Amino acid sequence: MAQVTQSLATVIEEFSKLPGIGRKSAERLAYHILRVHKSEALALADAIRAVRESVQYCSTCYNLAEGPTCTICSDDRRDKTLLCIVEQPRDLMALEQAGIFKGLYHVLLGRIAPLDGVGPDQLTIDPLVERVRSGTFREIIMATNPTVEGDGTALYISNLLAEYPVQITRLARGITTGSILEYTNKEILADALSLRQKF
Amino acid sequence: MAQVTQSLATVIEEFSKLPGIGRKSAERLAYHILRVHKSEALALADAIRAVRESVQYCSTCYNLAEGPTCTICSDDRRDKTLLCIVEQPRDLMALEQAGIFKGLYHVLLGRIAPLDGVGPDQLTIDPLVERVRSGTFREIIMATNPTVEGDGTALYISNLLAEYPVQITRLARGITTGSILEYTNKEILADALSLRQKF
Repeated sequence: MAQVTQSLATVIEEFSKLPGIGRKSAERLAYHILRVHKSEALALADAIRAVRESVQYCSTCYNLAEGPTCTICSDDRRDKTLLCIVEQPRDLMALEQAGIFKGLYHVLLGRIAPLDGVGPDQLTIDPLVERVRSGTFREIIMATNPTVEGDGTALYISNLLAEYPVQITRLARGITTGSILEYTNKEILADALSLRQKF
Repeated sequence: MAQVTQSLATVIEEFSKLPGIGRKSAERLAYHILRVHKSEALALADAIRAVRESVQYCSTCYNLAEGPTCTICSDDRRDKTLLCIVEQPRDLMALEQAGIFKGLYHVLLGRIAPLDGVGPDQLTIDPLVERVRSGTFREIIMATNPTVEGDGTALYISNLLAEYPVQITRLARGITTGSILEYTNKEILADALSLRQKF
């Protein structure tokens, strides 16, 4: 881009690498950085650096943590007989925000996706099996995404864990609360019908 | 938000201060920062810091610059008898990207907006008058935004500059190339009709 200073071109370039940020948005963000108080701009730069340098994965459940163990695994009030398996830390966060699950988690850090070249070995499945083998879980809840790959991953894991004396469940599948039947697609309706629950 | 590490909460907070970035987008950006290679995350942090620390306003035209004078003002090939007045560096950039203007610029760093408490004194109007007084401009093109405030600012400036022997013009106003008459609003059509040009 003509006539942009070098450092401005660089920051626009870096912003536009972020997900959902196109060229125009990146330019807008860059100009925002130039317009705000210097302390605010540097606070953002420092926050990005700090999060990348201090956050690591929990050695037990692979949730995000600032030490070797995450706040959930080190919380004595959690129910240590319940384990919820999610794909990403974001999914864990969504469940935590709902505030109804009080057990522990295991974050797979992905899902099995052969088309993307992601096999079971790239996920945290080995440590999961280890936890189940040595642990005291009475129930394992599959909370992978309700997609072909998420379902496939859940099926793979449930087969692996079948030999252990633990109950394996998955999140309920059906129509979503607050939705309108008329606008619901046929896959969702088919699931909701075939998995219908007692009233 | 429960169970987010401190540095993650901070970076989400900082991201959500950016224009057009809501809470959900800020979370997505933060997780992206955690997922990409460390060098990429730090490159973004460094770029933000660098642009805020190195970029300043050109002492002549108030465009963005990495030294006392911007690349346009220090470019000998530009036509020094033409001056284009814009509100913001972004507007200048848009015109430069069009690649058809070869004169110099003057960036007002805003527009007169009484409702926002922005008067002429907060803009770079004094140095503009000084440039016109001492300069060799034959034409000054008003390229403020086609809004009430942009038009008002252009009018204010053109009155100020009326005493100098220089031609004052403004960007053509009319229907936009590629638009569809049926979907054009009546203000645009009224302008296009009253300002109709020779065929």
